[in-house]
Amino acid sequence: MSVAQLLEALSSSNPTPGGGTAAAIAGAMGASLLVMVTRLSKSKNNTEDDKAALAMARNGLTPIVARLTELATADAQAFDRVMAAYRLPKISDAEMAARGQAIQSALQGATTVPLDTLRACAEALKHARVVAEFGNAAAASDAGVAIGLLRAAANGAHANVEVNLGGIKGEAFKTTTAETAAQLSSAAAADAATAARWVA
Amino acid sequence: MSVAQLLEALSSSNPTPGGGTAAAIAGAMGASLLVMVTRLSKSKNNTEDDKAALAMARNGLTPIVARLTELATADAQAFDRVMAAYRLPKISDAEMAARGQAIQSALQGATTVPLDTLRACAEALKHARVVAEFGNAAAASDAGVAIGLLRAAANGAHANVEVNLGGIKGEAFKTTTAETAAQLSSAAAADAATAARWVA
Repeated sequence: MSVAQLLEALSSSNPTPGGGTAAAIAGAMGASLLVMVTRLSKSKNNTEDDKAALAMARNGLTPIVARLTELATADAQAFDRVMAAYRLPKISDAEMAARGQAIQSALQGATTVPLDTLRACAEALKHARVVAEFGNAAAASDAGVAIGLLRAAANGAHANVEVNLGGIKGEAFKTTTAETAAQLSSAAAADAATAARWVA
Repeated sequence: MSVAQLLEALSSSNPTPGGGTAAAIAGAMGASLLVMVTRLSKSKNNTEDDKAALAMARNGLTPIVARLTELATADAQAFDRVMAAYRLPKISDAEMAARGQAIQSALQGATTVPLDTLRACAEALKHARVVAEFGNAAAASDAGVAIGLLRAAANGAHANVEVNLGGIKGEAFKTTTAETAAQLSSAAAADAATAARWVA
C-alpha cells in the first residue's frame, strides 16, 4: 500500500483502517528511525562497547518494525471482524447466542492486536535509551522524533485496548488484559522519558 | 512510495528521509483520522450546527493532509541540500565564501520546512477540538490517536526547527523563526490538551 493510499484509507468514512492502524504505522516509523540512528557511524568517540550496544539495539529493533507493520494490517482486520459480528442475524435465540459469541470472540481479537502494538512499542522504547545514549549526536533530533512517535503510538494502542475491553464480558480476560496494558504503558512512558533526556 | 519503502528508507543509513519526514507523515495520518471522524455520521444527536461545524473542520483538514504529505518529501530534499552544501569545495577564499553562503541558504530551507510542518500540525489541532467535541463518540479513540500523533509530529517538527536554526548566522531570521516556532508549539499544545479532554 502506498503512503497516499494509506492516508486516503484513514480519511475515508470506512471505520477501518483507523486509529489502531495509524498508531502501529507511527510506531513502525519510530522504530525505523531508531534503526537509522544505530547505523550512523560516530567517528570520534564510540568505543567498541558502544558499537556493540548499538548493534544489539538494531538487532532488537529490526523485527519490531516488521511486527508493527503486520499489526497495522491486523488491527483493521480485527475491527472488521467486530463489525461483521454485530451485523449477524439476531432473530432466534440460537442466532442471538451465536452472534453474542462471535462478538465476544471478535472483541478479544480487537483487544489483543492493540495490546501487541503496545508491547512492540514498549519493547522499541527499551532500545531507545541505548540508541539515544550511544547514537550519533548529529541524529539526536531523529531519535527525539522516534521517541515521541513511539510514545504516541503506545498511548494510542493503550486507548484502543481499553475501548475494546469495554465490550468484553469475560472478567478474567478483562482484568488480565487491562493490567498487562497498564504495565506496558508505564514501562513505555518511563523508558521514553529516560531516552528523551539523552537527546534533549 | 509504499509504506514498506518509507520504513525501509527511514531505517537506512542515509540521513534522509529522517525525523522531519516521519513527523510530517505522522501529522498527515493524524489529520486523515480527524477527516474520517468528521465523516462518521452520528445518527442520534447531531444538530445541524454540529454537522456544519464538522463539515467546516473537514474542509480545513483535507488540504492539511496534502500539505503534510508534500512537506514529508520537502523535508528530505531540504536536508539533502544542506549536506550537499557542506560537501562544496573549500580551498580558495572564493570557494569558502560560496560554500558558506550555500550552507546558510540551505539551512534556512531546512528550517522553513519543519516550521511549515509545525504550522500545519498546529492548524490541524485547532480543528481537532471541534472534531473531538461533535464527532461520533464511537470514534473517540480514533480522535484520541489523531491528537496524540499531531502533538508528537508538532514536537518533532519544532525540534527540527531548533536543530537547524543552530547553524544559522542571521540573527534576525533566527530570532523570528524561534519565536514563531515557540508560539505555534504552545498553541498546538493548548489545542491538543483541550481536544483531548473531549475524548478522554
